[in-house]
Amino acid sequence: MLLPSSLLQNAVDSFTQLPGIGKKTALRLVLHLLKQDKANVEHFAETIAKMRTEIVFCSRCHNISDANICNTCSNSMRNQHLICVVENIRDVIAIENTQQFNGVYHVLGGIISPLDGIGPNDLQIESLINRVKKEEVHELIFALNPNIQGDTTIYYIQKKLTGLDCKVTTIARGIAFGGELEFADEMTLAKSLTNRLPVQQYVK
Amino acid sequence: MLLPSSLLQNAVDSFTQLPGIGKKTALRLVLHLLKQDKANVEHFAETIAKMRTEIVFCSRCHNISDANICNTCSNSMRNQHLICVVENIRDVIAIENTQQFNGVYHVLGGIISPLDGIGPNDLQIESLINRVKKEEVHELIFALNPNIQGDTTIYYIQKKLTGLDCKVTTIARGIAFGGELEFADEMTLAKSLTNRLPVQQYVK
Repeated sequence: MLLPSSLLQNAVDSFTQLPGIGKKTALRLVLHLLKQDKANVEHFAETIAKMRTEIVFCSRCHNISDANICNTCSNSMRNQHLICVVENIRDVIAIENTQQFNGVYHVLGGIISPLDGIGPNDLQIESLINRVKKEEVHELIFALNPNIQGDTTIYYIQKKLTGLDCKVTTIARGIAFGGELEFADEMTLAKSLTNRLPVQQYVK
Repeated sequence: MLLPSSLLQNAVDSFTQLPGIGKKTALRLVLHLLKQDKANVEHFAETIAKMRTEIVFCSRCHNISDANICNTCSNSMRNQHLICVVENIRDVIAIENTQQFNGVYHVLGGIISPLDGIGPNDLQIESLINRVKKEEVHELIFALNPNIQGDTTIYYIQKKLTGLDCKVTTIARGIAFGGELEFADEMTLAKSLTNRLPVQQYVK
């Protein structure tokens, strides 16, 4: 695509580096910005640069934060003895949006995946073990994606926790709400039968 | 959506102001930028701010430009006596991409649309008339969208040009390549019959 200005071309090229944005979409975004006030566009650019340069990660749970300790970790209304272990920040946001979890988090920053060259030392596993040792942790809930990498990570961490007095659980696998039995894969259906619940508990 | 940091929240809010970008896409873009080098993200932000503050419009054709006179207008290889009149910058880019037009442009900046409160004085019509008066213009090609507003604009400008020695044409309407006759609207089909071409001219 030939553009009439190198400034325009550079801006379009910048946008196309973002995931899921092609040349036509990038041009649409840039022409939209071109119609806005200069002050607005400068504010837009500043916000993005500021976000990248000033954002910090919580030194305790490694979640995104505005300060050294994040809002969740410093909130005395939350159960600080219940830790939910997740792969990344997006998972924290997804769980927070359910508004059903009142504990705190631990963001691993990935999962063990030898094929991608990610080993235990690339993740925040050591700091999780230290938290369990130093803090009074009652329960560790693993909320990792249900695949080989996720299971490997759970297995690895559980071995590291041997001898420490801490309950370890994982989120339930089963048929999703709105899902249909006949289209469920065998493994999920089998697990949901094995881990069946008393009806009283289900409707609670 | 609850986000763990106000910096993140501000960046996501900035992206959602762009057309076609919702909260989930905005979060995906922001988390992508968060994974990039600080220098990269600062460059991204600078490019956008610079584009908005430094871009200028060609004083002759009102197209986007890096200088007072755009590359097309200052290009002696192009036919400076053939002006294609378009609604906006996007139309210039579309026509340039065909690589079939060797003249210059005149960007009106919109079309006459009383319902949207856009009159002739909001557009670059006066400067087009002045160009025809001062420059040696052989032909004016209207490449406006085929609707009432486009036709009104052509009619208005043509009246203003009365008495000036300049050929005025409009791009051909007809069945698009790949289009099927049976699905074409009556008006297009009727026009394409009226304005039929000798086969020699068509296959040229």
